[in-house]
Amino acid sequence: MYTFLNDSFVPDDKAFLHVSDLSIQRGYGIFDFFRVMDNYPLFIEDYLERLYVSAKEMHLKVPYKPGQLKSLIFELIQKNNIPMSGIKVILTGGYSPDGYQLADKANLIMVQKPMNFPPAGFPTEGIKIITHEYLRDKPHVKTINYVVGIWIQNKVLEKKAADVLYHYKGEVSEFPRCNFFIVRKDNTVVTPGENILEGVTRKHVLRLAAKKYKVEIGRVTLDDARAANEAFLTSTSKRIVPITQIDESIIGEGKPGRVTNDLYDDLVALELNEQAKAR
Amino acid sequence: MYTFLNDSFVPDDKAFLHVSDLSIQRGYGIFDFFRVMDNYPLFIEDYLERLYVSAKEMHLKVPYKPGQLKSLIFELIQKNNIPMSGIKVILTGGYSPDGYQLADKANLIMVQKPMNFPPAGFPTEGIKIITHEYLRDKPHVKTINYVVGIWIQNKVLEKKAADVLYHYKGEVSEFPRCNFFIVRKDNTVVTPGENILEGVTRKHVLRLAAKKYKVEIGRVTLDDARAANEAFLTSTSKRIVPITQIDESIIGEGKPGRVTNDLYDDLVALELNEQAKAR
Repeated sequence: MYTFLNDSFVPDDKAFLHVSDLSIQRGYGIFDFFRVMDNYPLFIEDYLERLYVSAKEMHLKVPYKPGQLKSLIFELIQKNNIPMSGIKVILTGGYSPDGYQLADKANLIMVQKPMNFPPAGFPTEGIKIITHEYLRDKPHVKTINYVVGIWIQNKVLEKKAADVLYHYKGEVSEFPRCNFFIVRKDNTVVTPGENILEGVTRKHVLRLAAKKYKVEIGRVTLDDARAANEAFLTSTSKRIVPITQIDESIIGEGKPGRVTNDLYDDLVALELNEQAKAR
Repeated sequence: MYTFLNDSFVPDDKAFLHVSDLSIQRGYGIFDFFRVMDNYPLFIEDYLERLYVSAKEMHLKVPYKPGQLKSLIFELIQKNNIPMSGIKVILTGGYSPDGYQLADKANLIMVQKPMNFPPAGFPTEGIKIITHEYLRDKPHVKTINYVVGIWIQNKVLEKKAADVLYHYKGEVSEFPRCNFFIVRKDNTVVTPGENILEGVTRKHVLRLAAKKYKVEIGRVTLDDARAANEAFLTSTSKRIVPITQIDESIIGEGKPGRVTNDLYDDLVALELNEQAKAR
């Protein structure tokens, strides 16, 4: 398999950065991640748009124009031929002269890895999640900073949970790598609007939901979450996953909900449609 | 020059990490940094103690016992022979199997670089600093996360300032890489006690100050800072630097203060004493 590094395709096991890179020195970089389905990068335009926004916000320059980068991604997909996979694009602060200043040139890495995506079909069981008070730095930018998310993994496992939902002073934001939704008793689909990264899956789910349900983007408290009829998370690699327990509270009837299921089906249909359009 | 990487001394320009390292993938790692003066690592015990505390807090295992690591540091100093320099020890989350999970083995990097330390003699001019509202993740741990500190450098330069002081809701904490002190009108030396990294220089300055002045570790607001008689920062690489302007407010008489100067002289004397003891 190949990894793309700055200006060339190198074998996976030959993709190295010098230790003066600002990601190693100061955790400084941005990234994005998208799914490849049957060798097609799903919703690639959305992810590329976000990548350039993240780069700009963090004073980093993507060394290619969007069209060039997209071509390189298609070349990577062709070279590797891993039909069901994920591609991560990382842009770091580059080789810093003093370990603090941004380098003139960012380092660009594109790694493709096989992934087992959730099998087609809505999950028959929901997950348990825990909550943690934490306000992310620059939540609207996809930086590589996951210090708290990784640090807390021990506790997630210890509590036999699948993930951890951040809140700050009782107001819910998101998971380290997923967005959060609730469905109120009147079937309104609600997702937090502040202190979050705007997920691509979140965006599509919101659009799909708006066709059938009342949709709200706004404040969700821990109490709102616990009192919801349904709850679910969205992410690039997991699509939609129903949540049936938050800390010690059972959500709704303790099983995946009808609206969640409906949105899941609509999302899978949208993905298939997107792939078909690309042929 | 040599860099120590995991288990061997490698030429500086050959020190690389594979892109699967969790610092590159997720900004996950800790570090410490100390000064080498006349080939002696100043206050090395303090820095090593903090390194092991940071590692433990972040679920990372230093691959050597403190005594072994200290020997390796002395070997690095001997090999490189850069009498006035800085050594940075970085411990990352290691080569992660999935780009999120901590690896079984952390990656250890020790880089030595020549440094121009401030010339002996108390600065005749103070610096201007700006302020920024920000609450660090895990401020008490020396993680490699400097996303905000580096991101805001543009603004620091634009405002012709030397550094940026973090506060949260008006309560001052620290600089990205330095601690903050004020001297009240009654000569009490005060430094924030919460949401900070406990600097080694801060610790020594507090001890020195306590011999001559009233010392307080506690709440410092932006108003307190602006109303102070003197203000200064402490750091490993800068010792003590007087601050004469915070945003648009002039501090005290707008020149380096008497107490700051006194503490600076005491710190230099302590350093010389420490070096002499080591001979």
